[in-house]
Amino acid sequence: MAHIDVLDLPLVLLSNRGPVSFDRDASGRTVNRGAGGLVSALAGLAEHLEDAVWVCGAATEEDAAVAREATGQALLVQTHPIPHLVDPRFGDAVPDGPAIKVRMVVTDPAAYADFYSIWSNPILWFVQHGLYGRSLSPVLTQAEHDAFENGYVVVNRAYADAVADEVRARGGKALVLLQDYHFYLVAEHVRQQCPDVVLTHFVHIPWPGPDEWRVLPADIRERLLTGLLGSDVVGFHTRRYARNFVLCAGELLGLPTDLDALTITVGDRTVRARYYPISVDPAALDTTLASEQVNAHVAMLRYIFLDEDRQLMLRVDRTDPSKNVVRGFLAFGTLLEQHPELVGKVSFLALLQPSRTDVPEYADYIALIGGVVAEINAKYTKEGRQPIDLRMVEDFPLAVAAYSICDVLVVNAIADGMNLVAKEVAVVNRRGGVLALSETAGAHEELGEFAVTLHPFDIQQMADAFYTALTMPLEERHRRLAAAAEQVRTHDVARWLGDQLTDLRRIAGFA
Amino acid sequence: MAHIDVLDLPLVLLSNRGPVSFDRDASGRTVNRGAGGLVSALAGLAEHLEDAVWVCGAATEEDAAVAREATGQALLVQTHPIPHLVDPRFGDAVPDGPAIKVRMVVTDPAAYADFYSIWSNPILWFVQHGLYGRSLSPVLTQAEHDAFENGYVVVNRAYADAVADEVRARGGKALVLLQDYHFYLVAEHVRQQCPDVVLTHFVHIPWPGPDEWRVLPADIRERLLTGLLGSDVVGFHTRRYARNFVLCAGELLGLPTDLDALTITVGDRTVRARYYPISVDPAALDTTLASEQVNAHVAMLRYIFLDEDRQLMLRVDRTDPSKNVVRGFLAFGTLLEQHPELVGKVSFLALLQPSRTDVPEYADYIALIGGVVAEINAKYTKEGRQPIDLRMVEDFPLAVAAYSICDVLVVNAIADGMNLVAKEVAVVNRRGGVLALSETAGAHEELGEFAVTLHPFDIQQMADAFYTALTMPLEERHRRLAAAAEQVRTHDVARWLGDQLTDLRRIAGFA
Repeated sequence: MAHIDVLDLPLVLLSNRGPVSFDRDASGRTVNRGAGGLVSALAGLAEHLEDAVWVCGAATEEDAAVAREATGQALLVQTHPIPHLVDPRFGDAVPDGPAIKVRMVVTDPAAYADFYSIWSNPILWFVQHGLYGRSLSPVLTQAEHDAFENGYVVVNRAYADAVADEVRARGGKALVLLQDYHFYLVAEHVRQQCPDVVLTHFVHIPWPGPDEWRVLPADIRERLLTGLLGSDVVGFHTRRYARNFVLCAGELLGLPTDLDALTITVGDRTVRARYYPISVDPAALDTTLASEQVNAHVAMLRYIFLDEDRQLMLRVDRTDPSKNVVRGFLAFGTLLEQHPELVGKVSFLALLQPSRTDVPEYADYIALIGGVVAEINAKYTKEGRQPIDLRMVEDFPLAVAAYSICDVLVVNAIADGMNLVAKEVAVVNRRGGVLALSETAGAHEELGEFAVTLHPFDIQQMADAFYTALTMPLEERHRRLAAAAEQVRTHDVARWLGDQLTDLRRIAGFA
Repeated sequence: MAHIDVLDLPLVLLSNRGPVSFDRDASGRTVNRGAGGLVSALAGLAEHLEDAVWVCGAATEEDAAVAREATGQALLVQTHPIPHLVDPRFGDAVPDGPAIKVRMVVTDPAAYADFYSIWSNPILWFVQHGLYGRSLSPVLTQAEHDAFENGYVVVNRAYADAVADEVRARGGKALVLLQDYHFYLVAEHVRQQCPDVVLTHFVHIPWPGPDEWRVLPADIRERLLTGLLGSDVVGFHTRRYARNFVLCAGELLGLPTDLDALTITVGDRTVRARYYPISVDPAALDTTLASEQVNAHVAMLRYIFLDEDRQLMLRVDRTDPSKNVVRGFLAFGTLLEQHPELVGKVSFLALLQPSRTDVPEYADYIALIGGVVAEINAKYTKEGRQPIDLRMVEDFPLAVAAYSICDVLVVNAIADGMNLVAKEVAVVNRRGGVLALSETAGAHEELGEFAVTLHPFDIQQMADAFYTALTMPLEERHRRLAAAAEQVRTHDVARWLGDQLTDLRRIAGFA
């Protein structure tokens, strides 16, 4: 990443989940590295910089213990080869490998619950994914107002204070990168305390238009927007989200905006909405694909699903209503009904990670998934073969194995900030797999031209699109897959970060 | 209406419900005039023009019989003093009072059912009011696609052909006024047949942004938009809807747009989005208010609700989920819980007209309304007085009586194109009634500054706003009401129509 060399400012990162987390087993304190492309990319950046610190929440009890021992200071954690806490009290103050400074913020558990389990999820998640059936939900009462004041606001202040603290420790001038919908109020607080900061807030989920935001009380939506406008740049995955953000600033706050330049005037400042599509780390995926574990899974999956001329459809998702799993199976049922020759020939493997099962809407959704799968399997099982194989697991090597040999990947989300599964499959698939992509997934802006497009509310259209994908000539399938893979490999997660830094340097006057 | 004199073109109107309807009783064929401000305003215009014709659907069996007898020709109906069909066969070819030409279109009942009961309601109504809980509804199947092709498209073509027929009968050049969401495909068909037409399509319900429209299949939403863009002007009640329409043309069709000028470029034509807030007929309301029937209702309502220092809250709505009746009562329950001194002092009269009870969502919604009313009445009945008086009736004189004496009018719609009840109350109330208006009702753009604003999803905010309204000093209440009444009286339904005609004349090059 050539861009790292040009970073002239100290770096302060903020995300809810950090790059490491502590636990305790019989041998004492253990350290786990965070997973996922975002954490890897940001950690890679932070590890290579002279002066960087990552502010995050204390996710475990042991995190909180470590944070208390550090008495509000940042910790130094060596990340390779063996992750461990560099503890000056034990004489190992100088790491002998890449290391990262981490500042874990401990907040009151009741405030954190209001912040995380009421406002971040479900309320903001549901609003931003358009999931509320407005005739009956949401019903916002004093309890939600209280949870906002005592939870979202309080936790955002605590994190903002920690960020500002780290900025001040670096002379008051730093590059600050804030992540996601948990922290819409942070930028404004940090700017008030540290006016010389260069600040970007990246939103990883969809940003809907003003009408959707009107579901929230006026004072709350205005505070969320005003909070975000403390940034120099508000980043999104797609142009559509960035436009919607500018529309919101104009319609809900009455601020002067330029919809073509994607700018908002806030007093004497200009806030820019920008879009940088997040991506995957192709080299890491290649390594995973080559592993023995994945190879064993591939052999097993081939044996189960791909003898003779059979075909495999795949989906890998959390059990989130935004993923639209139920309609995806309904469309598969319509496909089998309208093309009986496919019964016994096409399997649909669904690897679903149970998610937020403490939220009633999510628990209900899992039951609905089970119901529709049972109905379709009862109707179309042939010679002992069930058409749908539903597995409630989170197993990345198994997923990568399935990525590599599927004929069709199904992403039919109602709304999805980006959807990295589509990009992972584009990199890893070796069978001319066809991407079947929802028009409302962020990934569709980049990969739509190589995919078959899905309309997530339209069962018949999705069934037709599945048929198109399954019957597409193999040469065409490979041509499209190669083009999609090329797009992802040349627009990887390093580029996502690098483009942001290049823009920020320009905005801050360094380039 | 001075504008009528300047109409130099023949006029062709289209709406689903026409200005008259026929029935049959023991005495033979009877004629009923249509009710409502829109029909009155347009009928008033048509009656005074040399050459005007109103195309509408045959709503009754007798309408269909009359249409068949007319063999595709327009009928002449005298509207005053006694409405009757002017039938040349019986020698009364020249009316001796104001008359209106009506062309009733008869379509196949199955096509009409698909057009009206599947696509117009619930689908378009739900999309445009944001009522779908997208995680589970809508589920669009081949049946909905078929209903679109065989219903909405077929019926729109039939009406478009009738309109084009009437335009050609007038030399191919006419002013065409199309009404509402039933006919989004008509303008394009009429323009293809009669390119010299001056055409406006008025949409009486909200127009949401592109994200909401993405709930519909791409080909259908694109055809609906393209159909509307056959107009010279697409009219809405508010600037917000007009902006959303321009955003849709840009984002969903990729057309060049100007969001400030509210214009869309379609080939070599410019289509204008405009907003004209519809209104009421104050003189007609004054007449109704002065009637004996209303006076009797006023005395009865005063006796029941307003002895001593008691106060009356009122809502008058259809039982449509978009009206947000359930949350309105929940907020009233919160008000009584948090201000026990109001129990026994404040009544809430709800006059609700059952609506579309054949649609499951509507039938379920009525049951939910009954449930929440029972709960609140069980909890807060005091000295035999129930806090909520729920009446499932449509009774305009009773409504006007209640309008005139209520202390607070509640309009807390989730979304509402305009809401004329708020304007009727502004004209008719004599008690310093406070308008409590949803920020998402079209009327809020005009009357919000004189009202207390309601946030329709926020029970606590609505309860607080009700309290503010009920405890507002009487002088302030009368000042606001007078200002609201002045706004409505100077922006009546005649002005709504006149402003459109003035604009159209300018666009057509007559002024």
